[in-house]
Order: sequence, then C-alpha cells, then structure tokens
Amino acid sequence: MSESDGFEDLVGRLSSLPGIGRKTALRLAFHLLGHRELAADLASAIGNAVETIHRCESCRNLTEEQLCEICRDSGRRERICVVETPADLRSIEEAGLFRGRYFVLHGLLAPLDGIGPSDLGVDLLRSRIEEGGIEEIILALDSTAEGDATAVYLSRALESAGVLVTRLARGLPPGAAVEFADSLTLTEAFQGRRKV
Amino acid sequence: MSESDGFEDLVGRLSSLPGIGRKTALRLAFHLLGHRELAADLASAIGNAVETIHRCESCRNLTEEQLCEICRDSGRRERICVVETPADLRSIEEAGLFRGRYFVLHGLLAPLDGIGPSDLGVDLLRSRIEEGGIEEIILALDSTAEGDATAVYLSRALESAGVLVTRLARGLPPGAAVEFADSLTLTEAFQGRRKV
Repeated sequence: MSESDGFEDLVGRLSSLPGIGRKTALRLAFHLLGHRELAADLASAIGNAVETIHRCESCRNLTEEQLCEICRDSGRRERICVVETPADLRSIEEAGLFRGRYFVLHGLLAPLDGIGPSDLGVDLLRSRIEEGGIEEIILALDSTAEGDATAVYLSRALESAGVLVTRLARGLPPGAAVEFADSLTLTEAFQGRRKV
Repeated sequence: MSESDGFEDLVGRLSSLPGIGRKTALRLAFHLLGHRELAADLASAIGNAVETIHRCESCRNLTEEQLCEICRDSGRRERICVVETPADLRSIEEAGLFRGRYFVLHGLLAPLDGIGPSDLGVDLLRSRIEEGGIEEIILALDSTAEGDATAVYLSRALESAGVLVTRLARGLPPGAAVEFADSLTLTEAFQGRRKV
C-alpha cells in the first residue's frame, strides 16, 4: 500500500459508522479525496452540527435552540410520547399520527453497560409531569427485551405521578400472514386480541 | 420536524456521498450527533486527509510525501500499470500480482464533460517513459466504452515513445458458464481464444 497514515485514519473512522464496512469506507475515502471541496464542506458541516445542535431543555430532542420546535408549539400538550432516539421521534412525526410532545431517552436501560435511569433523564421527565397538564405518557419503545425492561421501569417510576402510562400495541404487523408469523408475534397477537 | 438547518445541512452533505441515500444519511447524522467525540474526530480526519494527502509527483497516486511509497521502491521499475483511480491501484496491489509502478489517470477521457488528455496527465506519463528503463505500459482500465476509448487514445499517444503498450485480457471471468454469458463477453472470449 502506498497510502498514508492520514488515509488509513480516515478509512478507520468512516468504517466505525453504523452500516459502513471497510469496503464502503474505502470507497467514501477515495471519493472524498477526489472531491476536496465536498470533503471540506462535509467536515465543517459535521463540526458545525456537533457545535450548535444540543438537547432540548424540556424533552431532550435535538435542536439548535433552548427549546425544540415541538416544545415551542403551544398547541401540543396533554400527551408525552417517550422514545428512545431522535430517529424514533422523526419516524413518528413523519407518520403524522401524534399531536403531542415527546421525551427522548437517548438510550434504553442497560445496567450491565452502566446505563441507568439518570442517563435516560427520568428525573426531567418526572418534573415535566409534575408541572401538570399531562394526561397520558405513551411509551413508544422498541419491542425488544431492553425496550420492555425500560417500559416496565418507567411505568413504575411514574406511578406516583398519577398519570396514565400506556405502551404501543403489539401484534401482527399490517399485511402479515398468520402462517409465517413467529410464535412470539402470535402470542402477543393472541394476548392483545380485541372484540371486532 | 424539530431539527435544525445545521442538521439538514449535514444530512444533505452526507447523502451526496456515493451509495448513501437519504435514509442512511439520516441514520449517520443521528449517530454522529449521539457520538460527538467520534463526530469531531471524523471531521478532523477528513480535514486532515484533504490537507495532507495529494498526488504523487511521479505517478499521481495519493500520498502524503512528494513521491508515493511505490515510486520510492527502487525494486519496482520496468513496467507501468495505468489505472483510472487510486481504488483500482489498491485492488491490483491487494491481489499482489504486479511488481511494477503505476500511473493514475484520475478519470477517463470524456470530451463531452470536458475531460481531455491534460486532465489525465498524459504528458507526465510520456515524460516518465522518456526517462527510459520502461519496457511495458499495461493499460488496466475498465472494459467500458470510456475505458476502451481511453485505452485506444493512450496506445496512440504513446506509440512514438517506442514502448510496448498492452491491455488486460478480456473473456469469461473465472467460474462463469458459457450458457449464461452475454453475447459481448462471448464475442471477446472467442476473439481472444488461445492455443491450449
């Protein structure tokens, strides 16, 4: 190889990104070095975003302001949807199905990795509920072991606040065939069955 | 959306990279904002690479020095392998099949896009041949219309230099079935047939 340490450093850092393997990292690095202006702009866009974008003081969503756009919208109150990541928030907003506020945990409980309630901002969430006016907390967390454990923890931690805590329905996703559904999905679908 | 201009700017620049669509760009942007140290390191790695890595004065390969590692290796002479990109060079080096020097065109002839011989460094290549000691120029270009046109141009441009110019063999790739080969591949394979 005749490439340099700087090149290997760039490839290494690119391949540490999610979904970027070494082959893709190499292709990106070569592309960046062949398009220097684009590369310089990307570097400053990353630097700029890291510097100016931080967590909303009220809901921990990403924003350049003190409060994010959703928290500044006085029409969106009464309900708080708790999500793991800003990406989850974005998916729900894009579906256009929810007109309330959010709370972003930036993670799920993982005691073995040292991620506890304080990392998820549970005290901030509780203080928001205590301000009053909240009717329901919707836990929109992944239906995984970590998501379930976090949902159980949160529902207990918020019990004393006297607010309704719900979580997203489980069952067959739309379009799914019973024949090919795995047993866990079928179990959840049976347990959650409803009167037609 | 409660995200900011800085966020949209970052997503836009990420999705201008090859193979990165908007969904992936969003995922990368969220990841970068969730891992600020990694993001800052990536930004400086890009900036550093763009600043320190340039073209080798002799072969236009990427390097941090005046001459790239391959050109500094006195054992590699006699043959020059002409490639389109540093990525092509890397693939050939990794295959470990060639012990000569390279010349990187950084493109192929494309008159309609204004890419002519001077952009490909043809004068520099010719002056390297005129320095003497070169027995063969191997054109290792893509077997596409642009690759073929560039190969034809180069073989004519280097004719006067009195050096053997060859190009890579065409034919069935190893493991390919005659039944499923397209007619262009079969035509090339017939034309290039050899005595067993």
